Amino acid sequence: SSLSNPIRATLFPGDGIGPEIADSVKQVFKEAEVPIEWEEHYVGDQIDPRTQSFLTWESLESIRRNRVGLKGPMATPIGKGHRSLNLTLRKELNLYANVRPCYSLPGYKTRYDDVNLITIRENTEGEYSGLEHQVVKGVVESLKIITRQASLRVAEYAFHYAKTHGRERVSAIHKANIMQKTDGLFLKCCREVAEKYPEIKYEEVVIDNCCMMLVKNPALFDVLVMPNLYGDIISDLCAGLIGGLGLTPSCNIGEGGIALAEAVHGSAPDIAGKNLANPTALILSAVTMLRHLELNDKADRIQNAILNTIAEGKYRTADLGGSSTTSDFTKAICDHL
Amino acid sequence: SSLSNPIRATLFPGDGIGPEIADSVKQVFKEAEVPIEWEEHYVGDQIDPRTQSFLTWESLESIRRNRVGLKGPMATPIGKGHRSLNLTLRKELNLYANVRPCYSLPGYKTRYDDVNLITIRENTEGEYSGLEHQVVKGVVESLKIITRQASLRVAEYAFHYAKTHGRERVSAIHKANIMQKTDGLFLKCCREVAEKYPEIKYEEVVIDNCCMMLVKNPALFDVLVMPNLYGDIISDLCAGLIGGLGLTPSCNIGEGGIALAEAVHGSAPDIAGKNLANPTALILSAVTMLRHLELNDKADRIQNAILNTIAEGKYRTADLGGSSTTSDFTKAICDHL
Ligand SMILES: CC(C)[C@H](C(=O)O)[C@@H](O)C(=O)O
Ligand SMILES: CC(C)[C@H](C(=O)O)[C@@H](O)C(=O)O
Repeated sequence: SSLSNPIRATLFPGDGIGPEIADSVKQVFKEAEVPIEWEEHYVGDQIDPRTQSFLTWESLESIRRNRVGLKGPMATPIGKGHRSLNLTLRKELNLYANVRPCYSLPGYKTRYDDVNLITIRENTEGEYSGLEHQVVKGVVESLKIITRQASLRVAEYAFHYAKTHGRERVSAIHKANIMQKTDGLFLKCCREVAEKYPEIKYEEVVIDNCCMMLVKNPALFDVLVMPNLYGDIISDLCAGLIGGLGLTPSCNIGEGGIALAEAVHGSAPDIAGKNLANPTALILSAVTMLRHLELNDKADRIQNAILNTIAEGKYRTADLGGSSTTSDFTKAICDHL
Repeated sequence: SSLSNPIRATLFPGDGIGPEIADSVKQVFKEAEVPIEWEEHYVGDQIDPRTQSFLTWESLESIRRNRVGLKGPMATPIGKGHRSLNLTLRKELNLYANVRPCYSLPGYKTRYDDVNLITIRENTEGEYSGLEHQVVKGVVESLKIITRQASLRVAEYAFHYAKTHGRERVSAIHKANIMQKTDGLFLKCCREVAEKYPEIKYEEVVIDNCCMMLVKNPALFDVLVMPNLYGDIISDLCAGLIGGLGLTPSCNIGEGGIALAEAVHGSAPDIAGKNLANPTALILSAVTMLRHLELNDKADRIQNAILNTIAEGKYRTADLGGSSTTSDFTKAICDHL
């Protein structure tokens, strides 16, 4: 790829601080001469009947066509009957795996300095089926669904990821001692896939024990793969270890090789438009998109530039204890490139 | 109560290291002149048809009669069709709330020194219903059940606990943004109870965010109340913050005022019988039993003695980095009384 024949990628700047941090990504990509041309799409202000959501049909078509995209924070408009924008994207694009690399940032002190793990979350089923009903008054049921198909494909993704990213071990997280059939099926699928990857170590860890071990010694873990709800919980726990959602990249993988990278933090309406937001999570998410495109040199350069900027400590946004503006911080990253 | 008219309590020493650490409790209670007479029961070596479990009918009768008990670790014999002993006890005795005080131990260094919270877990329903089935090949469902009755009683317990233990705030942990009906019902019940306790602050925290905040800043939390599975996960996470399950007490509360305190760590068969086990979790669990009996002076004395012994650092078992035997550590606690 070259600048004269760029790769088209969809960009959802999102709401609140979204446009500002999306701007940072654009600047950094430009400075690093990343051969990407953005197709920008905004969330509509009314429901598109073709998507039953505030996401327009054109924006979904864009990401389906481009197969890669980057998404800022999107606040789902409040009101009854609106599907969450995040969930709509997962469903419409069949984004079956959520991948979150989580590593300690040199120079940014938390209680942990030895985190270097990847959470891979099944992103389409489990407790997220939306099937709930009241049986008799005061007794409500919710269905958790685990399928062989979804479990195999996320397990396959996790092992493939481990192999292609120089990782040694995959831990499947579960509660099969209680949910023997559902989580049991998930584990069975992981075991099947593990057999195809003899070079990758495989272990199974019960979720409660996993959380205890993560807070005691996160260095014990490498790649973690798990059903939807556990992934939701554990990926946020892990983000907390290294400083929070403002620092952790995330990428959603869909059938047919779609990759939608996203910052999973909120849209922070209180500081929106004030040039105060931290673009780190969105830039690092964009880096995961570059890796998906196998533009690894660009990915490394940008990742190093942002890590070095944070490590140097001269330019940091308010959430990291500094007083830099978004633009100064972004400029510092560009200077490090 | 006095030594001449003691309170009878059931003691399940349990398996593995259970008998040794139960011995420690007995010694410490004797030294502190706690007016308790133990009725000891062991897990049988075959299934009692009356309980369909290795727990004998006599042992269940004992705890039903005494209404208070203490339980060491119990390993469920491996094999198909055996109900877990822990789950059998919860079910047979309707132990609807699991209460775990979790506080940093002075002098025992972890990454956190400011933990002081209580997790209160609904202990009877949710994903623990055991209702699972395969719909079509490769599609398995599991039922999560939330009832108004169980949610109200655990919420009531949590607020009552907060009020009677000088606590300021109750946080209800949930995922009602996804499970609007089930977790929604749980929250509705918590809100109803919260209204009866205007002096206690009330808030609702989504479980993923809660885990992130717990690892970033556990001092943000006071009393947490939650459905079964979240409680399973979060109570272990919290135990990890202060050093692990070997240090955290636990007490199960049942209908009609039954209290069964328990050490939730494993039976550690590898070190069983070697005088190496750490009795801290079981002794601190026994302390929660004393508080339930409103023997607060005895509870305070014993808790201080064990905390001081650990803080002093002269006698510590191997799991805490020391080289004391169980008996030396127990003697040290008695000396501190
Ligand atoms: C906003 C919410 C529906 C979502 C989820 O639960 O998946 C979020 O927590 C996430 O992790 O992306
Ligand atoms: C052993 C297991 C069934 C149990 C549970 O999941 O409740 C344990 O983790 C606990 O917390 O007591």
